[in-house]
Amino acid sequence: MLIVMRAEATDEDVARVCRAIERKGYEPRPIPGGTRTAIGVVGNKGAVDRSEFLGLPGVFECIPVSAPYKLVSREFHPVDTVVELPNGARIGGGYLCVMGGPCAVEDEAQMHEAAAYVAAAGGAVLRGGAYKPRTSPYSFQGHGPEALRLMRAAADAHGLAMVTEAVDHASADRVVEYADVIQIGARNMQNFSLLKHVGRFDKAVIVKRGMAATIEEWLLAAEYVLDAGNDRVILCERGIRSFDPTTRNVLDIAALAVARGLSHLPVIADPSHGTGLRDMVTPMARAAVAAGCDGLIVETHPRPAEALSDGHQALFPSQFEDMVREVRAIADVLGRTLSVPR
Amino acid sequence: MLIVMRAEATDEDVARVCRAIERKGYEPRPIPGGTRTAIGVVGNKGAVDRSEFLGLPGVFECIPVSAPYKLVSREFHPVDTVVELPNGARIGGGYLCVMGGPCAVEDEAQMHEAAAYVAAAGGAVLRGGAYKPRTSPYSFQGHGPEALRLMRAAADAHGLAMVTEAVDHASADRVVEYADVIQIGARNMQNFSLLKHVGRFDKAVIVKRGMAATIEEWLLAAEYVLDAGNDRVILCERGIRSFDPTTRNVLDIAALAVARGLSHLPVIADPSHGTGLRDMVTPMARAAVAAGCDGLIVETHPRPAEALSDGHQALFPSQFEDMVREVRAIADVLGRTLSVPR
Amino acid sequence: MLIVMRAEATDEDVARVCRAIERKGYEPRPIPGGTRTAIGVVGNKGAVDRSEFLGLPGVFECIPVSAPYKLVSREFHPVDTVVELPNGARIGGGYLCVMGGPCAVEDEAQMHEAAAYVAAAGGAVLRGGAYKPRTSPYSFQGHGPEALRLMRAAADAHGLAMVTEAVDHASADRVVEYADVIQIGARNMQNFSLLKHVGRFDKAVIVKRGMAATIEEWLLAAEYVLDAGNDRVILCERGIRSFDPTTRNVLDIAALAVARGLSHLPVIADPSHGTGLRDMVTPMARAAVAAGCDGLIVETHPRPAEALSDGHQALFPSQFEDMVREVRAIADVLGRTLSVPR
Amino acid sequence: MLIVMRAEATDEDVARVCRAIERKGYEPRPIPGGTRTAIGVVGNKGAVDRSEFLGLPGVFECIPVSAPYKLVSREFHPVDTVVELPNGARIGGGYLCVMGGPCAVEDEAQMHEAAAYVAAAGGAVLRGGAYKPRTSPYSFQGHGPEALRLMRAAADAHGLAMVTEAVDHASADRVVEYADVIQIGARNMQNFSLLKHVGRFDKAVIVKRGMAATIEEWLLAAEYVLDAGNDRVILCERGIRSFDPTTRNVLDIAALAVARGLSHLPVIADPSHGTGLRDMVTPMARAAVAAGCDGLIVETHPRPAEALSDGHQALFPSQFEDMVREVRAIADVLGRTLSVPR
Repeated sequence: MLIVMRAEATDEDVARVCRAIERKGYEPRPIPGGTRTAIGVVGNKGAVDRSEFLGLPGVFECIPVSAPYKLVSREFHPVDTVVELPNGARIGGGYLCVMGGPCAVEDEAQMHEAAAYVAAAGGAVLRGGAYKPRTSPYSFQGHGPEALRLMRAAADAHGLAMVTEAVDHASADRVVEYADVIQIGARNMQNFSLLKHVGRFDKAVIVKRGMAATIEEWLLAAEYVLDAGNDRVILCERGIRSFDPTTRNVLDIAALAVARGLSHLPVIADPSHGTGLRDMVTPMARAAVAAGCDGLIVETHPRPAEALSDGHQALFPSQFEDMVREVRAIADVLGRTLSVPR
Repeated sequence: MLIVMRAEATDEDVARVCRAIERKGYEPRPIPGGTRTAIGVVGNKGAVDRSEFLGLPGVFECIPVSAPYKLVSREFHPVDTVVELPNGARIGGGYLCVMGGPCAVEDEAQMHEAAAYVAAAGGAVLRGGAYKPRTSPYSFQGHGPEALRLMRAAADAHGLAMVTEAVDHASADRVVEYADVIQIGARNMQNFSLLKHVGRFDKAVIVKRGMAATIEEWLLAAEYVLDAGNDRVILCERGIRSFDPTTRNVLDIAALAVARGLSHLPVIADPSHGTGLRDMVTPMARAAVAAGCDGLIVETHPRPAEALSDGHQALFPSQFEDMVREVRAIADVLGRTLSVPR
Repeated sequence: MLIVMRAEATDEDVARVCRAIERKGYEPRPIPGGTRTAIGVVGNKGAVDRSEFLGLPGVFECIPVSAPYKLVSREFHPVDTVVELPNGARIGGGYLCVMGGPCAVEDEAQMHEAAAYVAAAGGAVLRGGAYKPRTSPYSFQGHGPEALRLMRAAADAHGLAMVTEAVDHASADRVVEYADVIQIGARNMQNFSLLKHVGRFDKAVIVKRGMAATIEEWLLAAEYVLDAGNDRVILCERGIRSFDPTTRNVLDIAALAVARGLSHLPVIADPSHGTGLRDMVTPMARAAVAAGCDGLIVETHPRPAEALSDGHQALFPSQFEDMVREVRAIADVLGRTLSVPR
Repeated sequence: MLIVMRAEATDEDVARVCRAIERKGYEPRPIPGGTRTAIGVVGNKGAVDRSEFLGLPGVFECIPVSAPYKLVSREFHPVDTVVELPNGARIGGGYLCVMGGPCAVEDEAQMHEAAAYVAAAGGAVLRGGAYKPRTSPYSFQGHGPEALRLMRAAADAHGLAMVTEAVDHASADRVVEYADVIQIGARNMQNFSLLKHVGRFDKAVIVKRGMAATIEEWLLAAEYVLDAGNDRVILCERGIRSFDPTTRNVLDIAALAVARGLSHLPVIADPSHGTGLRDMVTPMARAAVAAGCDGLIVETHPRPAEALSDGHQALFPSQFEDMVREVRAIADVLGRTLSVPR
């Protein structure tokens, strides 16, 4: 860490910071500058907590040099983590995995239809919401346990794995009984209590990036899950907030490549929530794969106009099929393989 | 609601949307435009769910006309809600309430010292963290139940009410036993499960605005609490994310005035997290009161340089005293009264 | 346009707005809502100016239904515009055009080397800065007219077209004598005086999106150029501002696809400024092409470590070559053709 | 400056950076860290250009320690700059100056009426637009030279100084003949050619902060004007872009206090453009003054409902009067004086 002093800091201020550094067992290295003095901190293992120094008199800012995360970091674990699911699908390490299905689980027929064409198109995982985090208390909140049962049956009937969201401890305890992958949504990315809870499970976990989370905060959210004992984590970029209302969010495609560089964990994209516009889903799915991501999670519905929620961003079955064909061709260009169930 | 059709939408597309509106029991009012047709929806009580129409062929966008919240809305409840605490302090309706204390509860002496000068300066509520939501799993997470006991004792000894954060169902169940006000932090603003949970308590609840939440989403988060039965909700603006790293966040002072216009709930400001810089806390506290807010929640520590967390944004005791004196003078200009314990 | 009235608006307020609409020659269509009345405006050709109604008593907001731009709009001009350059290169309408070169023109050798490998790799246009808009007055501001001469010679020697930035009327008058394409930078996107000025030239113009410009504002900036008489405009997405300091900007890949849908103009991407990180340039170039853009403008330098500016984001020659090979393969998947000089 | 190396940087990479630092005449100070080496740069006067090091192999990032601006900096010029206008009004150094008037100059009667009540209420400067930078080429662009004449006459008749915007070199050359203060609008904050141009005038200049400009970029824009020879610069915060459409912009009140700390220049606020909502103008004006700003520039119109542009954010005459009375009372609390013409 580098501690930058204010221009008007006194020699005594500098000396006090140096003593504080020494008390922590580190070594201070003052660097006098044109208008300010900076003090390097040497001898630490891993990140130094900046809040211990920010409060001292004369300190202007504390600039971290080491990354604050460890277990998720590629510096500590250079080889790609490959998450393998019970049906043999793999995510990461050269394998591209496509997950598809409706926003919300509605009924048995819908899920069976969806599972059938998702599997036929080349998808490996069935998605669908049983517990829905909704901005308004008056919106449909999901069919809960019944939805989990319907979804598991549909996935099994077509050889797909199953992913669905948990919104609290109680729903997580239900979801883990049925799903192969537990999703933590963007709104819960910093629900640290929930992250620790799913960190104790023996199931893969998707950690979606929060709408205004930096890449560092996103990796630290994943770190909570690994730190609790679960290293089968998949990062998912799903769009960030911007000033432009044209698209619902801005899908941060570069974040896919950046996160893959900083971390060994597989990184997937959600072009449905990332744009909120059906016509943009396939172009963004192609872009995400071209940028090097390890998977896609996409909303598709047998009959979008009848969907209970978010029908406007769901692909029609034929669009889903076209999307998988196109991303497979782009994956080929990059030497990557579409991962299908055994 | 207004449904705007694409320029290339056909007459049949328009007719289909009109039929869908009628099926919901509303009345469609087509408005042909220069290049597009728009369709007004008439006859609804409250907000119409846009997702039911967005998926239909030819629909470009759905523009809500009514606000999606009800219970928090000033349109439905024109008179200011005043939240009164057990020690007689009032928030809202012309009363300005100052809450102060350290970021984290550290030990008995710290809390007693803090309570003493907060009360002497004109504060009415003692704040302090027992459960801390921290970005990194390796940062100090709070002293938990023991901190609650210490804090309650310190508050009682000095006639203060007590506010502290709950981060999940379990901590909320503990907090409610000790605190007069339960705080839901910015990172949990869309933890809807937690909002519903504290909505069942008979204690006041602060709902902090998420770092990238719109004012509408913030009001809808409060709506979750009221909808669950608890109408003693205080809104708290604590800074939003921006592109500028100079301040930790941008304290959205206008949001205080906007929220007070849209809602009858009291609205307070947190200038400590809103800026992250000690020197900015008092100017922003003054600004918030000048904009018409109903209260302040401010970090202050007997010895900021020794604070376990966030010492760099904690006011020194004398600064806290100066701040209260200045905001009281500004409140006088606006005809508002600093609310002190009985 | 739809005019939404406040909940507390009186019948007289509504009547006054209706009369104002009629005075403009349009027809008002009141739509009574659950809590508010909305008034549709019918009979207008093109966009209605909202500021004429926003000031009236009782008006809450004015929601545009028609887009405010015309000449750039695909609704008015459905077929793709193809910009053809003197060397035969084409941008748009199925042709992908790659532009490459250094951030700043430094000397003759640098430009000839750059032109040689850009052309050999499949590039069609040489880029380079003669007039540099720099955040600090103390940074290198470009070599001006001399740079234009060097660059033209290098481009001609290798069959490339030439693009460079103009920063004001005077530099535009110089640039137009040498360049085939005049670039308006992100910082000048709303320098309307400059847009009108280059709108009088008979040369192609790149309009870069401002760092915080909405897609609508970007299209309106292009509209200024077309309105002044120049319809050979190329839109360029170069990254928007976000809260995350990890990348310099967020390259808004979806904006490429959205802009191509709203406008007939060709749309290109600048992955160099869009990320500010050399390692991210090629993944983002691939993503932009996969999303369907019509071209790329990329910084590359014969020896990036010696560059006078922005060397950290310049591709090495071999990286530029690899990038062109990869984007060509992805263009093939989409049925698009890399456009090379005659 | 601190140069942070990548975790995988070799000893030779570190040595190469040290040699590059020495070649610039500075001294390198390597600081080995837990996972990375950082290299301090010592011996520089003022800021070091980071782009010279970012391109070197093994370099991860370059972190500036000194601020990149000089002339505007309080570190170099600790005493407040006070800008005095020909009518005796002062801005800065304990004087609060209120500027008011319509968005656009419309006709003689409007300007005389406005000048009369602005002066009577306690304003010192008349504002009004003769050259309007408009997002759409089809919006009203201002009455130009004729407007300047009308405005000057109205200001003189009531003892007010005059401020108006210049949008390019040509309009600046006209404006300087009439106005006492030349305004550079937010959209032109990084029109460096225009900044240099007005830097050669002997008139005060307002530099408005760009909608997505960091405070550092804003100060560097002012630095362009001072560097060209004009040190009578006034900084103006007018709202930044955010994700929330509720207010047109977010008025960054903290930026007022931050800029006053970093710079000796006076800092004023524009609550009209900063919110875009008439009802928010007065609360935000109060907040800006409470935060310690040196002035306000506010839109007000004799009859807002008839305004040619932006009538929805213009204060009614009586509201303007109330606003001045309230901000004067708040200025009193802070020991500041409302500056009125001689």
